[in-house]
Amino acid sequence: MANLIEPRTLKGFRDYLPAVMIPREEMLAKARQVYRSYGFAPIDTPALEYAEILLGKGGEETDKQLYRFLDKGERDVALRFDLTVPLARFVAQHIAELGTPFKRYHLGPVWRGENTQRGRFREFWQCDFDTIGTTSNAADIEVALVIHDLMRALGFERFTIRINNRMILSGLLEELGLADRSKALLIALDKLPKIGGDAVAKEMVDTAHVSTAEAQRVLALAQTTGSNAEILDRVEKEFGGNPKAAEGARRLRDLVDVARAAGIADERIRLDLAIARGLDYYTGTIYETFLDDDTGIGSVCSGGRYDNLTKLFTKQELPGVGASLGLDRLLAAMEKANLLPTAATPAPVLIVQFDTTRLGAYQALARQLRAAGIGVEVFPEAKKIGPQLQYAEKRGFKVALIAGPTEFEQGVWKIKNLATRTETTVPHTEVMTAIRAACGLA
Amino acid sequence: MANLIEPRTLKGFRDYLPAVMIPREEMLAKARQVYRSYGFAPIDTPALEYAEILLGKGGEETDKQLYRFLDKGERDVALRFDLTVPLARFVAQHIAELGTPFKRYHLGPVWRGENTQRGRFREFWQCDFDTIGTTSNAADIEVALVIHDLMRALGFERFTIRINNRMILSGLLEELGLADRSKALLIALDKLPKIGGDAVAKEMVDTAHVSTAEAQRVLALAQTTGSNAEILDRVEKEFGGNPKAAEGARRLRDLVDVARAAGIADERIRLDLAIARGLDYYTGTIYETFLDDDTGIGSVCSGGRYDNLTKLFTKQELPGVGASLGLDRLLAAMEKANLLPTAATPAPVLIVQFDTTRLGAYQALARQLRAAGIGVEVFPEAKKIGPQLQYAEKRGFKVALIAGPTEFEQGVWKIKNLATRTETTVPHTEVMTAIRAACGLA
Repeated sequence: MANLIEPRTLKGFRDYLPAVMIPREEMLAKARQVYRSYGFAPIDTPALEYAEILLGKGGEETDKQLYRFLDKGERDVALRFDLTVPLARFVAQHIAELGTPFKRYHLGPVWRGENTQRGRFREFWQCDFDTIGTTSNAADIEVALVIHDLMRALGFERFTIRINNRMILSGLLEELGLADRSKALLIALDKLPKIGGDAVAKEMVDTAHVSTAEAQRVLALAQTTGSNAEILDRVEKEFGGNPKAAEGARRLRDLVDVARAAGIADERIRLDLAIARGLDYYTGTIYETFLDDDTGIGSVCSGGRYDNLTKLFTKQELPGVGASLGLDRLLAAMEKANLLPTAATPAPVLIVQFDTTRLGAYQALARQLRAAGIGVEVFPEAKKIGPQLQYAEKRGFKVALIAGPTEFEQGVWKIKNLATRTETTVPHTEVMTAIRAACGLA
Repeated sequence: MANLIEPRTLKGFRDYLPAVMIPREEMLAKARQVYRSYGFAPIDTPALEYAEILLGKGGEETDKQLYRFLDKGERDVALRFDLTVPLARFVAQHIAELGTPFKRYHLGPVWRGENTQRGRFREFWQCDFDTIGTTSNAADIEVALVIHDLMRALGFERFTIRINNRMILSGLLEELGLADRSKALLIALDKLPKIGGDAVAKEMVDTAHVSTAEAQRVLALAQTTGSNAEILDRVEKEFGGNPKAAEGARRLRDLVDVARAAGIADERIRLDLAIARGLDYYTGTIYETFLDDDTGIGSVCSGGRYDNLTKLFTKQELPGVGASLGLDRLLAAMEKANLLPTAATPAPVLIVQFDTTRLGAYQALARQLRAAGIGVEVFPEAKKIGPQLQYAEKRGFKVALIAGPTEFEQGVWKIKNLATRTETTVPHTEVMTAIRAACGLA
């Protein structure tokens, strides 16, 4: 016998078994449903792009993490690291056909050669939605509403959408004459929750080459606390003279007001001037979303406004705003916390294969139940009933259906409720009703 | 200004715009629903695998087409070219946890560096379902039932599932003392519909090094015509003495009988001894599915039994049988034939943004309709009504909702039916009912 090849996945990659994949598919379906309910339409783009499309868009970190290689035609290609940069390429390429405003969602895998010691996967799904072609604050506001409805649809009641607007910090930096240090300052600020204020101030001095007093000024702004109204009042009082900061504050105020009018509970949306986001391309509103009961997993839905991203591909102005659900990060947290259901089958009914010569009758009944929307598996082998029922219980079926020569002769089916372990016998004309009742579908 | 990067996709890759992606998502949802209704559970595996996992499994052709490279850890990796080989690796790795029989479906993209002149994509989705861990013919039979229900769910009435069993040809080759030429003969036979019998016979002589008489004997078997019963009778009469051929014929006969008993119309299933399938790993039943009205696009759902595939990864016997829907090939054919719907929005209702100060009220109504399952887009800019209604018509919205200062004062909404171009005014308490009626949801 030839040597065996060890069956294994690459480091940082994982298989999804049914018990995790079933809830993952449900989460994807819910995300789709929420996005569609707001009029976002689905698109898809290739996993592989010319490397030049992706390079330099997400910052040095993502460039380093690219899966990049020469294909057989000697093209310099790479796997996408997010869905936003491909979106910029996509709209630049197709905007004449698409028209504006263009609202799209895109669910798909992305690849980043990240350090796996941080518990990150190198392949994970993102669930993005974006509005392209308008600078209207109505689109920014809607992003917060979508995130809210999305988190609710996924089953979360206790979460906080933290929102900031980069124009406020930009305004402060303009006042301080530090507009050119913005990138390094944002990278430092993004680390605030992890390393604390002192370390952030030190990094600002070291990498952005600002004075200690300037670093403290930026930090003081970021660390502003209070209610949404208090934060806005303070920004307007201190920086209202700067047009950029004033515009940022005005957009945040409208967001808070409209969200309330649309019926979102106040505590779900918190203004937070420390939210920086790692990616370079954001220019306005930025969003992060935290589970109140598990802030440790970080933001599960993040995004922002990026008014310049398509400028690398087209001269047409195509501003955008949107966010991305980190599906696999959320799923891993739920898996770890034992919050996922345990059934490993999507079908509630197993038909026991008792009499091989009756396979046609088993499949005929199964197809009848399937047509009524009830999933049915016919056990593929004519094993003894015991092992077939054990299989049914282990997989999480709700009901087993049994018929052998006696039952066929009498025109009846045995219905075994696997939860209550009770068995009833019903005429074949009543099987459908009995099954619906046993599956809780009555 | 910096030089623009040309927004383009790689050769053989394509973007999916909403008008195509909306039906594509619907087809994926239908495939999921049919697979789940038979008890197949979803799984997912990484796009990237160690190259050794994928090499030599699909034949020389697929090896040549691999997207293969060294990652940053100098690992020899490749993008999967199908979902069956990763399945073999997956079950070998997880079978202790999964148990048998294991029924899974897997929807996802695969990559092949194919010659694009043949109109093939280099990235396309496959929708696979397989039963692992049993040699029972019940599993083979079920594959035909699933393909049937899948095609019906996708909206096709006129299609033919062509089925063969490799054991019949193997039996003949045993009789002829040509068992070792099987691979080359199958590759030649697979070309029969494209190049015709004479060219196939010549290729058999040239590449499989058989005599002309032997080639004619194989061709004569493959070209057997007649009803399913006539074909089976002939095989049993001519090759019934060979245990392999007899077993292949018996399995096909059971398949035809059970499919009929389960309610499948006879003409949907045709035995066809010329069906060979390109891939090496099949050992028993094989399936191809053709649209009666468009045979030119080739098989849209193909598969077979492969009893040895996992042997490269584990000593445990893990036979399998299943098939794969070629979603993107089918979609491209439907697109070409103008069979796809034209709406570019998944939401039926557009709320016109007439009065910017009422954005909260617009979103409040929208959220109320969304909660009732009706998709609603709020136009993001306070443009004039004309352009907003043009946008609504172009995208394929069914209804536009309009309210300005007068309507808010009177507590009413204007409802514009975009198909009939009629306008009605209703009190805000009746908006929901009126919208449901206008959208045909009443």
